[in-house]
Amino acid sequence: MHSTYFTAGPSQLYPSYQKHLVDAMDKQLGSVNHRSETFRAIYRHTDEQLRILLDIPSTHGIFFAASATEIWERILLNCVAEHSFHLTNGAFSKKFYDIALALNKNAIDFQVEDGKGFDLQQIHIPKETELICTTQNETSTGVMIPDQDLKLIKKTHPNTMLCCDLVSIAPYSKIDYTLMDSSFFSVQKAFGMPPGLGVWIANEQCLNKALQLQASGKNIGGHHTLASYWTNYRKFETPCTPNVMAIYILGKIAEDMNHLGVDTIRAEIDAKASMIYHFAEQAKNFTPFVQLPEHRSQTVAVLQTKIPSADIINTLKTKQVCVSSGYGIHKANQIRIANFPATNLSDMGHLLEILTDIDHA
Amino acid sequence: MHSTYFTAGPSQLYPSYQKHLVDAMDKQLGSVNHRSETFRAIYRHTDEQLRILLDIPSTHGIFFAASATEIWERILLNCVAEHSFHLTNGAFSKKFYDIALALNKNAIDFQVEDGKGFDLQQIHIPKETELICTTQNETSTGVMIPDQDLKLIKKTHPNTMLCCDLVSIAPYSKIDYTLMDSSFFSVQKAFGMPPGLGVWIANEQCLNKALQLQASGKNIGGHHTLASYWTNYRKFETPCTPNVMAIYILGKIAEDMNHLGVDTIRAEIDAKASMIYHFAEQAKNFTPFVQLPEHRSQTVAVLQTKIPSADIINTLKTKQVCVSSGYGIHKANQIRIANFPATNLSDMGHLLEILTDIDHA
Repeated sequence: MHSTYFTAGPSQLYPSYQKHLVDAMDKQLGSVNHRSETFRAIYRHTDEQLRILLDIPSTHGIFFAASATEIWERILLNCVAEHSFHLTNGAFSKKFYDIALALNKNAIDFQVEDGKGFDLQQIHIPKETELICTTQNETSTGVMIPDQDLKLIKKTHPNTMLCCDLVSIAPYSKIDYTLMDSSFFSVQKAFGMPPGLGVWIANEQCLNKALQLQASGKNIGGHHTLASYWTNYRKFETPCTPNVMAIYILGKIAEDMNHLGVDTIRAEIDAKASMIYHFAEQAKNFTPFVQLPEHRSQTVAVLQTKIPSADIINTLKTKQVCVSSGYGIHKANQIRIANFPATNLSDMGHLLEILTDIDHA
Repeated sequence: MHSTYFTAGPSQLYPSYQKHLVDAMDKQLGSVNHRSETFRAIYRHTDEQLRILLDIPSTHGIFFAASATEIWERILLNCVAEHSFHLTNGAFSKKFYDIALALNKNAIDFQVEDGKGFDLQQIHIPKETELICTTQNETSTGVMIPDQDLKLIKKTHPNTMLCCDLVSIAPYSKIDYTLMDSSFFSVQKAFGMPPGLGVWIANEQCLNKALQLQASGKNIGGHHTLASYWTNYRKFETPCTPNVMAIYILGKIAEDMNHLGVDTIRAEIDAKASMIYHFAEQAKNFTPFVQLPEHRSQTVAVLQTKIPSADIINTLKTKQVCVSSGYGIHKANQIRIANFPATNLSDMGHLLEILTDIDHA
């Protein structure tokens, strides 16, 4: 019997995933050359559907990498000569910062403790900063940066490039992509696909910066550079042989989401998030980890629990339901519940019924 | 109706690919966490089966990247402070060299013209060389470096690290992995899988070199470094979320190949290669591009043709058979025929019958 995955990602596959996989096999897309018209049509379609879904402006290209982790590295190589600035509030925003240090960048972070959001008044971003790095949804702690805060960062730093990690929040996020020089996500979270593909959205300013760094003799990477991405993108090709099947299925899932309407998807996520937080606020043994409601993630809810998380996870497993443990030092006393489009209100209701039983046991 | 792909890669899927994909879906591997015991068992199995298949010694780790192109970049970052030396004889060995230049390495190449192999007597490898970069099977020209030549390069340069691109030849290649500090391939060639996974085999010397470069303050990359690969590999994990489904299926296909026996697979490739070259030697309109039989690739046969390649390809398409055109400047007057394990003697016979008809038309 199959399980339902509310894990923080990889997570439940989108309901139409398997159908698109079968179609891709039937069309023999696994054998298709990435310099063929068949592939260019796939890329064009995925590009078009993601643009509609996320309202991405024509100033921005859409590129494919192996993972969001790879994109952390690529964006720092391509857009930062020396100075990056990082808002860190958990393990993943911290890893983005650590990669900047590994690449010998002069990286500065503004760190808040786990479970807290950012008070923009407190943050001083140095003048020499080339790229401000943000993580809208901290998958480790369940803290979200509100859309308007990201907007405000750009408005107050119009001449500094801003990038946003949307890994576990796209397509729920309503950020204004015209203000976001670069953003990215991976498909194994809210797009309900197996891992193996990262999506990088970057504007022409990012390209210009990369070209400028390259001209100055900086190492901006060997193949997945913005220069090489853009050159290939203009003909809907990729710098090297990509994960063709995943690019095809991502386009099909984005198309399905467009048929449903992104507002409908967002509203259902909001409804399910309300259910989770309502449960946690009423429960004896569970509380939302993030105090301020405006900083609570709608897509990855983190609950503090008095019952050891391993016991909860094991009980859920016997009912064919999976959630994630807390991350890092929070492993034992938190659970994380992904609230992605692949699960519906009824799935979430079922999970919360079991958690209610556990709470009352 | 489905086509048979003799394209140079992506190519025909291995006969058992679809069965393993269905099994993976049934086991919900698309939702599995890459820090779980389920994933560790998958990695362990794939590692074990590849070791058996290729006879990889325990001094070498097996790591996963997005593509062989990524591995070109990673190996140069991790194993070369300044000096790499490249044997180039076609577009792909040249790209490996170009990546070294893009990464600001002091790269030197020894180049021979398309269709020619290397005469080791002619090659002088400078003393300061840290890594000798070879491509055993040039997918663009169909030139193969004999196993014994690779052995001889190592024997005559025992203190220089040697790496070999096995992209379109593993598992056919019988190279001695104990002499090869590093090697790599991608799965969309002779392993008969869709693209999206590169496999990197590297020994402890490569790791030590990477650690030494890192300690000296060199940028060896942000996440797919040998340091990070090895740390994770020791527990059968990966530095970041990998293409789990592809790692699983690769292990299963390697297991199928082991059941069949790698010698049987190699013998069948040899038999099919003989059929192709025999046809070309008898034909009016086709000739083998590579003159010297010992330099002719057994896995990617390149044929010079008097008939425009586009006409041949179009005629073959009407019979549901696909081959590749020539590469780059050879596009119009060459065809490339992949001779991978996914096609059998009867498939090859069918292709050659059609080519014979075209030749006689």
